[in-house]
Amino acid sequence: MNIANRIELIALPGLPAVKPGDALDGLVAQGLDAARIDLCDGDVVVFAQKVVSKAEGRLVDLRSVTPSPRAEEVARQVDKDPRLVELILRESKRIVRQRRDVLVVEHRLGFVMANAGIDQSNVASAAEGEFALLLPEDPDASALRLRAALARSCGARTGVIINDSFGRPWRRGTAGVAIGCAGLPALRDLRGRPDLFGRTLRVTEIGLADEIAAAASLLMGQADEARPVVIVRGLDIHGPALAAQVLVRPPEEDLFR
Amino acid sequence: MNIANRIELIALPGLPAVKPGDALDGLVAQGLDAARIDLCDGDVVVFAQKVVSKAEGRLVDLRSVTPSPRAEEVARQVDKDPRLVELILRESKRIVRQRRDVLVVEHRLGFVMANAGIDQSNVASAAEGEFALLLPEDPDASALRLRAALARSCGARTGVIINDSFGRPWRRGTAGVAIGCAGLPALRDLRGRPDLFGRTLRVTEIGLADEIAAAASLLMGQADEARPVVIVRGLDIHGPALAAQVLVRPPEEDLFR
Repeated sequence: MNIANRIELIALPGLPAVKPGDALDGLVAQGLDAARIDLCDGDVVVFAQKVVSKAEGRLVDLRSVTPSPRAEEVARQVDKDPRLVELILRESKRIVRQRRDVLVVEHRLGFVMANAGIDQSNVASAAEGEFALLLPEDPDASALRLRAALARSCGARTGVIINDSFGRPWRRGTAGVAIGCAGLPALRDLRGRPDLFGRTLRVTEIGLADEIAAAASLLMGQADEARPVVIVRGLDIHGPALAAQVLVRPPEEDLFR
Repeated sequence: MNIANRIELIALPGLPAVKPGDALDGLVAQGLDAARIDLCDGDVVVFAQKVVSKAEGRLVDLRSVTPSPRAEEVARQVDKDPRLVELILRESKRIVRQRRDVLVVEHRLGFVMANAGIDQSNVASAAEGEFALLLPEDPDASALRLRAALARSCGARTGVIINDSFGRPWRRGTAGVAIGCAGLPALRDLRGRPDLFGRTLRVTEIGLADEIAAAASLLMGQADEARPVVIVRGLDIHGPALAAQVLVRPPEEDLFR
Protein backbone atom coordinates (compact mmCIF):
# COMPACT_ATOMS: atom_id res chain seq x y z
CA MET A 1 0.00 0.00 0.00
CA ASN A 2 1.30 3.42 -0.94
CA ILE A 3 -0.21 6.29 0.95
CA ALA A 4 -0.75 9.46 -1.07
CA ASN A 5 1.51 12.48 -0.57
CA ARG A 6 -1.15 14.88 -1.63
CA ILE A 7 -4.90 14.72 -2.02
CA GLU A 8 -7.40 17.24 -3.22
CA LEU A 9 -11.07 17.64 -2.39
CA ILE A 10 -13.35 19.50 -4.77
CA ALA A 11 -16.97 20.39 -4.01
CA LEU A 12 -19.06 20.44 -7.16
CA PRO A 13 -20.67 23.84 -7.64
CA GLY A 14 -24.16 24.81 -8.64
CA LEU A 15 -26.09 21.58 -8.29
CA PRO A 16 -29.84 22.09 -8.57
CA ALA A 17 -32.21 20.88 -5.85
CA VAL A 18 -32.72 17.13 -6.15
CA LYS A 19 -36.18 15.66 -6.81
CA PRO A 20 -37.43 12.08 -6.54
CA GLY A 21 -36.32 10.08 -9.55
CA ASP A 22 -33.44 12.40 -10.46
CA ALA A 23 -30.40 10.64 -11.90
CA LEU A 24 -27.58 11.86 -9.67
CA ASP A 25 -24.89 10.85 -12.17
CA GLY A 26 -26.37 13.39 -14.59
CA LEU A 27 -26.22 16.11 -11.94
CA VAL A 28 -22.61 15.16 -11.22
CA ALA A 29 -21.77 15.40 -14.93
CA GLN A 30 -23.30 18.90 -15.01
CA GLY A 31 -21.38 19.92 -11.89
CA LEU A 32 -18.12 18.61 -13.37
CA ASP A 33 -18.80 20.66 -16.48
CA ALA A 34 -19.44 23.77 -14.40
CA ALA A 35 -16.22 23.17 -12.45
CA ARG A 36 -14.36 22.37 -15.70
CA ILE A 37 -12.94 19.13 -14.39
CA ASP A 38 -13.11 15.54 -15.53
CA LEU A 39 -13.72 12.61 -13.28
CA CYS A 40 -10.63 10.35 -13.13
CA ASP A 41 -10.11 6.68 -12.39
CA GLY A 42 -9.42 6.38 -8.68
CA ASP A 43 -11.39 9.46 -7.67
CA VAL A 44 -13.81 8.95 -4.81
CA VAL A 45 -17.16 10.69 -5.28
CA VAL A 46 -18.83 11.44 -1.95
CA PHE A 47 -22.57 12.09 -1.95
CA ALA A 48 -24.39 13.62 0.99
CA GLN A 49 -27.04 11.19 2.22
CA LYS A 50 -29.73 13.81 1.75
CA VAL A 51 -29.43 14.00 -2.04
CA VAL A 52 -29.36 10.23 -2.40
CA SER A 53 -32.43 9.91 -0.18
CA LYS A 54 -34.25 12.64 -2.10
CA ALA A 55 -33.44 11.10 -5.48
CA GLU A 56 -34.68 7.75 -4.17
CA GLY A 57 -37.97 9.23 -3.03
CA ARG A 58 -37.41 8.71 0.69
CA LEU A 59 -39.30 11.88 1.58
CA VAL A 60 -42.33 11.14 3.75
CA ASP A 61 -45.27 13.47 4.28
CA LEU A 62 -45.83 13.36 8.03
CA ARG A 63 -49.56 13.91 7.46
CA SER A 64 -49.65 10.40 5.98
CA VAL A 65 -48.19 8.82 9.13
CA THR A 66 -50.42 7.37 11.86
CA PRO A 67 -48.45 6.86 15.07
CA SER A 68 -48.82 3.58 16.91
CA PRO A 69 -49.63 3.64 20.64
CA ARG A 70 -45.96 2.86 21.36
CA ALA A 71 -44.81 5.77 19.16
CA GLU A 72 -47.26 8.04 21.02
CA GLU A 73 -45.83 6.91 24.34
CA VAL A 74 -42.17 7.33 23.33
CA ALA A 75 -43.00 10.69 21.76
CA ARG A 76 -44.39 11.89 25.10
CA GLN A 77 -41.27 10.66 26.90
CA VAL A 78 -38.79 12.34 24.55
CA ASP A 79 -40.98 15.31 23.59
CA LYS A 80 -40.97 14.77 19.83
CA ASP A 81 -43.65 14.67 17.13
CA PRO A 82 -45.37 11.22 17.45
CA ARG A 83 -45.46 10.87 13.65
CA LEU A 84 -41.70 11.40 13.49
CA VAL A 85 -41.21 8.89 16.33
CA GLU A 86 -43.38 6.41 14.41
CA LEU A 87 -41.03 6.71 11.41
CA ILE A 88 -37.97 6.42 13.66
CA LEU A 89 -39.29 3.23 15.23
CA ARG A 90 -40.19 1.75 11.83
CA GLU A 91 -36.62 2.39 10.68
CA SER A 92 -35.05 0.89 13.81
CA LYS A 93 -34.33 -2.43 15.45
CA ARG A 94 -34.53 -0.99 18.92
CA ILE A 95 -34.10 2.08 21.11
CA VAL A 96 -30.58 2.27 22.56
CA ARG A 97 -30.96 5.39 24.73
CA GLN A 98 -33.72 7.91 25.23
CA ARG A 99 -34.02 11.12 27.13
CA ARG A 100 -35.91 14.37 26.61
CA ASP A 101 -35.08 15.56 23.04
CA VAL A 102 -32.80 12.55 22.47
CA LEU A 103 -33.69 9.27 20.80
CA VAL A 104 -30.71 7.09 19.95
CA VAL A 105 -31.64 3.91 18.11
CA GLU A 106 -30.06 0.96 16.39
CA HIS A 107 -31.11 1.60 12.80
CA ARG A 108 -32.30 -1.42 10.84
CA LEU A 109 -28.92 -1.29 9.02
CA GLY A 110 -27.07 -1.49 12.34
CA PHE A 111 -26.03 2.15 12.68
CA VAL A 112 -26.34 3.42 16.24
CA MET A 113 -27.54 6.96 15.66
CA ALA A 114 -29.94 9.68 16.70
CA ASN A 115 -33.46 9.59 15.22
CA ALA A 116 -32.62 6.74 12.82
CA GLY A 117 -30.95 9.37 10.65
CA ILE A 118 -34.28 10.95 9.82
CA ASP A 119 -33.89 14.55 8.91
CA GLN A 120 -36.23 17.49 8.92
CA SER A 121 -33.70 20.17 7.94
CA ASN A 122 -32.99 20.99 4.31
CA VAL A 123 -36.18 19.18 3.35
CA ALA A 124 -38.37 21.35 1.17
CA SER A 125 -41.96 21.56 2.28
CA ALA A 126 -45.00 23.65 1.58
CA ALA A 127 -45.97 23.61 5.23
CA GLU A 128 -42.79 23.63 7.28
CA GLY A 129 -42.26 20.60 9.46
CA GLU A 130 -44.58 18.34 7.51
CA PHE A 131 -41.93 16.31 5.72
CA ALA A 132 -39.19 14.00 6.90
CA LEU A 133 -36.39 12.36 4.96
CA LEU A 134 -35.38 8.76 5.67
CA LEU A 135 -32.00 7.18 4.96
CA PRO A 136 -31.77 5.33 1.63
CA GLU A 137 -33.30 1.87 1.73
CA ASP A 138 -29.87 0.23 1.17
CA PRO A 139 -27.06 2.80 0.96
CA ASP A 140 -24.41 0.26 -0.08
CA ALA A 141 -26.62 -0.78 -3.00
CA SER A 142 -27.18 2.91 -3.80
CA ALA A 143 -23.41 3.44 -3.84
CA LEU A 144 -22.94 0.50 -6.21
CA ARG A 145 -25.62 1.85 -8.56
CA LEU A 146 -24.12 5.35 -8.47
CA ARG A 147 -20.68 3.93 -9.20
CA ALA A 148 -21.99 2.07 -12.25
CA ALA A 149 -23.91 5.13 -13.43
CA LEU A 150 -20.84 7.37 -13.07
CA ALA A 151 -18.78 4.85 -15.05
CA ARG A 152 -21.35 5.04 -17.83
CA SER A 153 -21.89 8.80 -17.89
CA CYS A 154 -18.39 10.00 -16.97
CA GLY A 155 -16.26 7.09 -18.16
CA ALA A 156 -14.29 6.75 -14.92
CA ARG A 157 -13.82 3.92 -12.45
CA THR A 158 -14.36 5.70 -9.17
CA GLY A 159 -15.07 4.88 -5.59
CA VAL A 160 -18.41 6.10 -4.24
CA ILE A 161 -19.26 6.96 -0.65
CA ILE A 162 -22.58 8.13 0.76
CA ASN A 163 -21.96 10.09 3.94
CA ASP A 164 -24.01 11.40 6.80
CA SER A 165 -23.18 13.38 9.94
CA PHE A 166 -23.33 11.33 13.12
CA GLY A 167 -23.12 12.43 16.71
CA ARG A 168 -20.58 10.61 18.83
CA PRO A 169 -21.06 9.27 22.35
CA TRP A 170 -18.05 10.84 24.07
CA ARG A 171 -17.32 13.79 21.86
CA ARG A 172 -19.26 16.94 21.06
CA GLY A 173 -20.09 17.87 17.49
CA THR A 174 -20.98 15.69 14.55
CA ALA A 175 -18.52 14.05 12.17
CA GLY A 176 -19.02 12.66 8.68
CA VAL A 177 -19.46 8.89 8.50
CA ALA A 178 -19.87 6.51 5.54
CA ILE A 179 -23.27 4.85 5.38
CA GLY A 180 -22.73 3.53 1.85
CA CYS A 181 -19.55 2.57 0.02
CA ALA A 182 -18.62 0.99 -3.32
CA GLY A 183 -15.40 0.48 -5.22
CA LEU A 184 -12.98 0.86 -2.32
CA PRO A 185 -12.16 -0.86 0.97
CA ALA A 186 -14.41 0.79 3.55
CA LEU A 187 -12.15 -0.80 6.16
CA ARG A 188 -8.40 -1.10 5.65
CA ASP A 189 -6.77 -4.00 7.41
CA LEU A 190 -3.18 -3.41 8.50
CA ARG A 191 -2.85 -6.56 10.57
CA GLY A 192 0.58 -8.08 10.32
CA ARG A 193 2.17 -5.03 8.70
CA PRO A 194 5.42 -3.92 10.30
CA ASP A 195 5.59 -0.49 11.85
CA LEU A 196 8.54 1.90 11.39
CA PHE A 197 10.70 -0.19 13.70
CA GLY A 198 9.68 -3.63 12.53
CA ARG A 199 7.27 -4.36 15.38
CA THR A 200 4.00 -5.81 14.18
CA LEU A 201 1.19 -3.27 14.39
CA ARG A 202 -1.38 -3.84 17.09
CA VAL A 203 -3.89 -1.27 15.89
CA THR A 204 -4.99 -3.12 12.86
CA GLU A 205 -7.95 -1.63 11.10
CA ILE A 206 -8.57 1.87 9.78
CA GLY A 207 -12.08 3.13 9.05
CA LEU A 208 -10.97 4.37 5.63
CA ALA A 209 -14.43 5.21 4.27
CA ASP A 210 -15.32 7.05 7.49
CA GLU A 211 -12.18 9.17 7.29
CA ILE A 212 -12.98 10.01 3.65
CA ALA A 213 -16.57 10.77 4.64
CA ALA A 214 -15.38 13.13 7.38
CA ALA A 215 -12.96 14.86 5.02
CA ALA A 216 -15.68 15.42 2.42
CA SER A 217 -18.00 16.71 5.09
CA LEU A 218 -15.59 19.64 5.59
CA LEU A 219 -16.66 20.97 2.19
CA MET A 220 -20.32 20.09 2.25
CA GLY A 221 -21.62 22.44 4.89
CA GLN A 222 -24.77 21.77 6.83
CA ALA A 223 -26.58 25.04 6.36
CA ASP A 224 -27.56 27.16 3.40
CA GLU A 225 -24.27 26.81 1.54
CA ALA A 226 -24.70 23.04 1.29
CA ARG A 227 -22.69 21.32 -1.43
CA PRO A 228 -23.79 17.73 -1.59
CA VAL A 229 -21.14 16.21 -3.90
CA VAL A 230 -17.40 16.20 -3.21
CA ILE A 231 -14.68 14.62 -5.34
CA VAL A 232 -11.68 13.25 -3.42
CA ARG A 233 -8.68 12.96 -5.70
CA GLY A 234 -5.30 11.36 -5.15
CA LEU A 235 -6.08 8.70 -2.54
CA ASP A 236 -4.89 5.14 -2.93
CA ILE A 237 -8.12 3.17 -2.85
CA HIS A 238 -6.67 -0.13 -4.01
CA GLY A 239 -7.59 -3.24 -2.14
CA PRO A 240 -10.64 -5.45 -1.94
CA ALA A 241 -13.82 -3.38 -2.20
CA LEU A 242 -15.73 -3.55 1.06
CA ALA A 243 -19.19 -2.08 1.65
CA ALA A 244 -19.92 0.39 4.45
CA GLN A 245 -21.83 -2.39 6.19
CA VAL A 246 -18.48 -3.88 7.31
CA LEU A 247 -17.94 -0.70 9.36
CA VAL A 248 -20.84 -1.63 11.62
CA ARG A 249 -19.38 -3.33 14.66
CA PRO A 250 -21.29 -6.53 15.35
CA PRO A 251 -23.32 -6.19 18.57
CA GLU A 252 -21.52 -9.18 20.11
CA GLU A 253 -18.15 -7.35 19.76
CA ASP A 254 -19.60 -4.13 21.11
CA LEU A 255 -19.03 -3.06 24.70
CA PHE A 256 -21.22 0.04 24.55
CA ARG A 257 -24.60 -0.91 23.17
CA MET B 1 -19.09 31.43 7.14
CA ASN B 2 -17.97 30.50 3.66
CA ILE B 3 -17.23 26.86 3.12
CA ALA B 4 -14.32 26.13 0.81
CA ASN B 5 -14.90 24.82 -2.71
CA ARG B 6 -11.60 23.08 -2.79
CA ILE B 7 -9.08 22.00 -0.22
CA GLU B 8 -5.72 20.32 -0.54
CA LEU B 9 -3.88 18.09 1.89
CA ILE B 10 -0.11 17.73 1.62
CA ALA B 11 1.95 15.27 3.63
CA LEU B 12 5.44 16.60 4.32
CA PRO B 13 8.08 14.25 2.96
CA GLY B 14 11.29 13.00 4.44
CA LEU B 15 11.01 13.98 8.08
CA PRO B 16 13.71 12.40 10.23
CA ALA B 17 12.86 10.34 13.29
CA VAL B 18 11.93 12.63 16.18
CA LYS B 19 13.94 12.62 19.41
CA PRO B 20 13.16 14.12 22.81
CA GLY B 21 13.74 17.87 22.77
CA ASP B 22 13.49 18.20 18.99
CA ALA B 23 11.90 21.45 17.81
CA LEU B 24 9.10 20.25 15.54
CA ASP B 25 8.75 23.64 13.84
CA GLY B 26 12.31 23.22 12.53
CA LEU B 27 11.46 19.78 11.14
CA VAL B 28 8.36 21.25 9.50
CA ALA B 29 10.46 24.01 7.93
CA GLN B 30 12.82 21.34 6.52
CA GLY B 31 9.88 19.31 5.19
CA LEU B 32 8.36 22.39 3.55
CA ASP B 33 11.73 23.05 1.91
CA ALA B 34 11.91 19.47 0.64
CA ALA B 35 8.34 19.73 -0.72
CA ARG B 36 9.11 23.19 -2.15
CA ILE B 37 6.08 24.78 -0.58
CA ASP B 38 5.56 27.69 1.77
CA LEU B 39 3.26 27.67 4.73
CA CYS B 40 0.39 30.15 4.21
CA ASP B 41 -1.87 32.05 6.58
CA GLY B 42 -4.95 29.94 7.15
CA ASP B 43 -3.23 26.58 6.59
CA VAL B 44 -3.87 23.97 9.24
CA VAL B 45 -0.81 21.94 10.23
CA VAL B 46 -1.76 18.54 11.60
CA PHE B 47 0.81 16.68 13.70
CA ALA B 48 0.52 13.01 14.55
CA GLN B 49 0.40 12.60 18.32
CA LYS B 50 3.41 10.30 18.23
CA VAL B 51 5.87 12.93 17.05
CA VAL B 52 4.61 15.48 19.53
CA SER B 53 4.87 12.94 22.35
CA LYS B 54 8.37 11.93 21.27
CA ALA B 55 9.57 15.54 21.03
CA GLU B 56 8.16 16.17 24.50
CA GLY B 57 10.00 13.21 25.96
CA ARG B 58 6.91 11.15 26.79
CA LEU B 59 8.69 7.88 26.09
CA VAL B 60 8.80 5.65 29.18
CA ASP B 61 11.16 2.74 29.69
CA LEU B 62 8.93 -0.04 30.99
CA ARG B 63 11.83 -1.41 33.03
CA SER B 64 11.52 1.73 35.18
CA VAL B 65 7.87 1.05 36.00
CA THR B 66 6.81 -0.83 39.14
CA PRO B 67 3.21 -1.99 38.87
CA SER B 68 0.92 -1.43 41.81
CA PRO B 69 -1.11 -4.37 43.17
CA ARG B 70 -4.17 -2.97 41.36
CA ALA B 71 -2.26 -2.78 38.06
CA GLU B 72 -1.13 -6.39 38.58
CA GLU B 73 -4.73 -7.45 39.13
CA VAL B 74 -6.14 -5.58 36.11
CA ALA B 75 -3.24 -6.86 33.99
CA ARG B 76 -4.18 -10.44 34.86
CA GLN B 77 -7.83 -9.76 33.98
CA VAL B 78 -7.12 -8.17 30.59
CA ASP B 79 -3.94 -10.15 29.82
CA LYS B 80 -1.60 -7.21 29.34
CA ASP B 81 1.88 -6.30 30.62
CA PRO B 82 1.39 -5.10 34.26
CA ARG B 83 3.89 -2.29 33.71
CA LEU B 84 1.87 -1.05 30.75
CA VAL B 85 -1.33 -1.31 32.79
CA GLU B 86 0.35 0.69 35.56
CA LEU B 87 1.06 3.49 33.06
CA ILE B 88 -2.49 3.30 31.68
CA LEU B 89 -3.98 3.62 35.17
CA ARG B 90 -1.67 6.54 36.03
CA GLU B 91 -2.86 8.33 32.88
CA SER B 92 -6.54 7.66 33.57
CA LYS B 93 -9.38 8.83 35.75
CA ARG B 94 -11.08 5.44 35.68
CA ILE B 95 -11.65 2.24 33.74
CA VAL B 96 -14.75 2.49 31.52
CA ARG B 97 -14.78 -1.07 30.10
CA GLN B 98 -12.43 -4.01 30.34
CA ARG B 99 -12.28 -7.40 28.76
CA ARG B 100 -9.49 -9.73 27.68
CA ASP B 101 -7.12 -7.65 25.48
CA VAL B 102 -9.32 -4.55 25.87
CA LEU B 103 -8.90 -1.76 28.40
CA VAL B 104 -11.01 1.34 27.66
CA VAL B 105 -10.43 4.18 30.10
CA GLU B 106 -11.36 7.76 30.68
CA HIS B 107 -8.02 9.47 30.14
CA ARG B 108 -7.10 12.21 32.63
CA LEU B 109 -7.91 14.70 29.81
CA GLY B 110 -11.40 13.22 29.43
CA PHE B 111 -10.88 11.18 26.26
CA VAL B 112 -12.62 7.83 26.39
CA MET B 113 -10.10 5.61 24.63
CA ALA B 114 -8.26 2.31 24.62
CA ASN B 115 -5.11 2.03 26.75
CA ALA B 116 -5.10 5.76 27.61
CA GLY B 117 -3.64 6.33 24.15
CA ILE B 118 -0.39 4.65 25.16
CA ASP B 119 1.38 3.24 22.17
CA GLN B 120 3.97 0.56 21.74
CA SER B 121 4.13 0.59 17.93
CA ASN B 122 6.50 2.91 16.07
CA VAL B 123 8.41 3.41 19.29
CA ALA B 124 12.11 2.80 18.80
CA SER B 125 13.69 0.54 21.37
CA ALA B 126 16.86 -1.43 21.85
CA ALA B 127 14.95 -4.28 23.37
CA GLU B 128 11.61 -4.51 21.63
CA GLY B 129 8.60 -4.02 23.85
CA GLU B 130 10.46 -2.18 26.57
CA PHE B 131 9.23 1.31 25.73
CA ALA B 132 5.82 2.94 25.73
CA LEU B 133 4.78 6.36 24.50
CA LEU B 134 2.26 8.43 26.48
CA LEU B 135 0.04 11.20 25.10
CA PRO B 136 1.46 14.72 25.48
CA GLU B 137 0.99 16.17 28.95
CA ASP B 138 -1.38 18.87 27.63
CA PRO B 139 -1.98 18.54 23.86
CA ASP B 140 -3.90 21.84 23.59
CA ALA B 141 -0.95 23.65 25.16
CA SER B 142 1.38 21.75 22.80
CA ALA B 143 -0.73 22.92 19.85
CA LEU B 144 -0.54 26.53 21.04
CA ARG B 145 3.25 26.30 21.41
CA LEU B 146 3.62 24.70 17.97
CA ARG B 147 1.42 27.39 16.44
CA ALA B 148 3.60 30.14 17.95
CA ALA B 149 6.79 28.34 16.86
CA LEU B 150 5.51 27.95 13.29
CA ALA B 151 4.61 31.63 13.19
CA ARG B 152 8.19 32.45 14.18
CA SER B 153 9.99 30.00 11.90
CA CYS B 154 7.67 29.99 8.89
CA GLY B 155 6.02 33.41 9.21
CA ALA B 156 2.47 32.14 8.82
CA ARG B 157 -0.59 32.33 11.02
CA THR B 158 -1.82 28.75 10.89
CA GLY B 159 -4.14 26.50 12.76
CA VAL B 160 -2.52 23.53 14.51
CA ILE B 161 -4.11 20.18 15.30
CA ILE B 162 -2.56 17.20 17.07
CA ASN B 163 -4.35 14.05 16.00
CA ASP B 164 -4.54 10.46 17.13
CA SER B 165 -6.43 7.40 15.89
CA PHE B 166 -9.30 6.38 18.14
CA GLY B 167 -11.45 3.29 18.05
CA ARG B 168 -15.18 3.91 18.03
CA PRO B 169 -17.80 2.07 20.08
CA TRP B 170 -20.23 1.09 17.34
CA ARG B 171 -18.02 1.13 14.28
CA ARG B 172 -15.06 -0.96 13.25
CA GLY B 173 -11.75 0.64 12.37
CA THR B 174 -10.04 3.65 13.83
CA ALA B 175 -10.57 7.26 12.74
CA GLY B 176 -8.41 10.32 13.28
CA VAL B 177 -9.49 12.56 16.15
CA ALA B 178 -8.14 15.90 17.41
CA ILE B 179 -6.55 15.71 20.86
CA GLY B 180 -5.00 19.18 20.60
CA CYS B 181 -6.09 22.25 18.68
CA ALA B 182 -5.00 25.89 18.40
CA GLY B 183 -5.88 28.76 16.12
CA LEU B 184 -9.21 27.47 14.86
CA PRO B 185 -12.64 26.56 16.24
CA ALA B 186 -12.37 22.88 17.21
CA LEU B 187 -16.16 22.90 17.37
CA ARG B 188 -18.24 24.89 14.92
CA ASP B 189 -21.57 26.04 16.20
CA LEU B 190 -24.32 26.31 13.59
CA ARG B 191 -27.15 26.92 16.03
CA GLY B 192 -29.67 29.35 14.70
CA ARG B 193 -28.38 29.23 11.12
CA PRO B 194 -31.05 28.68 8.50
CA ASP B 195 -30.88 25.58 6.35
CA LEU B 196 -31.46 25.63 2.58
CA PHE B 197 -35.17 26.11 3.09
CA GLY B 198 -35.09 28.61 5.91
CA ARG B 199 -35.82 26.14 8.69
CA THR B 200 -33.54 26.58 11.66
CA LEU B 201 -30.96 23.81 11.85
CA ARG B 202 -31.44 21.30 14.61
CA VAL B 203 -28.06 19.59 14.28
CA THR B 204 -26.05 22.41 15.64
CA GLU B 205 -22.45 21.59 16.20
CA ILE B 206 -19.81 20.14 13.89
CA GLY B 207 -16.65 18.54 15.23
CA LEU B 208 -14.53 20.59 12.85
CA ALA B 209 -11.14 19.69 14.33
CA ASP B 210 -12.07 16.00 14.38
CA GLU B 211 -13.06 16.07 10.71
CA ILE B 212 -9.76 17.79 9.85
CA ALA B 213 -7.91 15.23 12.00
CA ALA B 214 -9.61 12.36 10.16
CA ALA B 215 -8.82 13.90 6.77
CA ALA B 216 -5.14 14.31 7.65
CA SER B 217 -5.03 10.78 8.94
CA LEU B 218 -5.75 9.58 5.37
CA LEU B 219 -2.24 10.72 4.42
CA MET B 220 -0.34 9.79 7.54
CA GLY B 221 -0.39 6.03 7.41
CA GLN B 222 0.00 3.86 10.46
CA ALA B 223 2.72 1.52 9.32
CA ASP B 224 6.15 1.93 7.82
CA GLU B 225 5.22 4.71 5.41
CA ALA B 226 4.20 6.98 8.27
CA ARG B 227 4.13 10.69 7.48
CA PRO B 228 3.51 12.55 10.68
CA VAL B 229 2.86 16.09 9.41
CA VAL B 230 0.07 17.07 7.01
CA ILE B 231 -0.79 20.56 5.78
CA VAL B 232 -4.48 21.23 5.13
CA ARG B 233 -4.89 24.16 2.78
CA GLY B 234 -7.99 26.05 1.69
CA LEU B 235 -10.31 25.55 4.65
CA ASP B 236 -12.16 28.43 6.22
CA ILE B 237 -10.97 28.32 9.82
CA HIS B 238 -12.36 31.68 10.87
CA GLY B 239 -14.27 31.90 14.08
CA PRO B 240 -13.36 31.94 17.75
CA ALA B 241 -10.41 29.63 18.41
CA LEU B 242 -11.54 26.72 20.57
CA ALA B 243 -9.22 24.09 22.04
CA ALA B 244 -9.73 20.37 21.45
CA GLN B 245 -10.79 20.09 25.08
CA VAL B 246 -14.21 21.51 24.08
CA LEU B 247 -14.72 18.36 21.97
CA VAL B 248 -14.82 16.24 25.10
CA ARG B 249 -18.45 15.70 25.98
CA PRO B 250 -18.98 16.43 29.66
CA PRO B 251 -19.80 13.20 31.54
CA GLU B 252 -23.12 14.64 32.73
CA GLU B 253 -24.26 15.08 29.09
CA ASP B 254 -23.03 11.63 28.12
CA LEU B 255 -25.42 8.70 27.79
CA PHE B 256 -22.76 6.07 27.11
CA ARG B 257 -20.07 6.30 29.75
